[in-house]
Amino acid sequence: MKLLEDRIRQEGIVLPHNVLKVDSFLNHQVDPELMSAVGKEFAKRFADKPVTKILTVESSGIAPAVMTGLALHVPVIFARKHKSLTLTDDLYTADVYSYTKQTTNKISIAKRFIEPNDSVLIIDDFLANGQAVEGLLTIADAAQIQVQGIGIVIEKTFQKGRDIITKRDIQLEALAQISSLENGQVQFAN
Amino acid sequence: MKLLEDRIRQEGIVLPHNVLKVDSFLNHQVDPELMSAVGKEFAKRFADKPVTKILTVESSGIAPAVMTGLALHVPVIFARKHKSLTLTDDLYTADVYSYTKQTTNKISIAKRFIEPNDSVLIIDDFLANGQAVEGLLTIADAAQIQVQGIGIVIEKTFQKGRDIITKRDIQLEALAQISSLENGQVQFAN
Repeated sequence: MKLLEDRIRQEGIVLPHNVLKVDSFLNHQVDPELMSAVGKEFAKRFADKPVTKILTVESSGIAPAVMTGLALHVPVIFARKHKSLTLTDDLYTADVYSYTKQTTNKISIAKRFIEPNDSVLIIDDFLANGQAVEGLLTIADAAQIQVQGIGIVIEKTFQKGRDIITKRDIQLEALAQISSLENGQVQFAN
Repeated sequence: MKLLEDRIRQEGIVLPHNVLKVDSFLNHQVDPELMSAVGKEFAKRFADKPVTKILTVESSGIAPAVMTGLALHVPVIFARKHKSLTLTDDLYTADVYSYTKQTTNKISIAKRFIEPNDSVLIIDDFLANGQAVEGLLTIADAAQIQVQGIGIVIEKTFQKGRDIITKRDIQLEALAQISSLENGQVQFAN
């Protein structure tokens, strides 16, 4: 998606340990018009899939997920992050390790919002090592619902996230694919 | 806003200690079409204000704020919540006490996203005791920017949030105003 790649080129900041900071339009400051374009693009790419709900994780996934939900006319559920949880009877939960923050969070979704007939799309801001997506897949498995596809705003193709998804034969769409951040330079795949 | 009041009547769950749970369309599951209507309504109510940016707090403020930003064609900044912060040189920060969770979080916004000429609208999901809004006002004061208005999706008029805002002579718009949750019943003001 050219619009997105241009913004990454112009405003992305490469930090040590392969971190790409895009907090001027995605993670902290959000560009609603870009998010709207992102949502419409995901809706187009998954147009043939019977999607009843969108799953994402708070907080940076919310803006692109809600715009996708608007384009597809389906509700969005954002999984909550918690350091620890004691009462989990009514929740589907999964552990998500963050390589950037080196902490494990539990993510959770209330059981009453996922029904056996749901067929979901997972949307997230980044795909790197795939921990957040894996957590959502664990929840989808526990809820016995079908994952129709995974839409990622920015993928770092040199990390292992993609393998986790393609291994499961799920359609993966990334709107910008970054193949390297070496020497502080953003290299796009293709 | 009738559309919103209807949803609160149909789906809102009143919990002890004056907590209204609306996690089927606002706080956990999000209805993108309702959020779009909310955004357009805020844009209409603040149409005469020179707004350059929208401020909100993660996570539940993001969906209504981004939809308002889309309607007003301005960026949205969501303040980050942290349990504690050590490096705060490049951040505006404020303490926010949560009565529901009985914890204090620091919220922060990167200084580089707020400029002296900015003139902002604050959007949030709930106004109860006004702690989150007060935190954002503290940040706006530190950044020496003007707050043009405050837009709240659901206000509990029987708590003290409104006083904090009107004391400062800032336009406050709440799309649903709840005057009582006594006996498990939602009563709307007017």
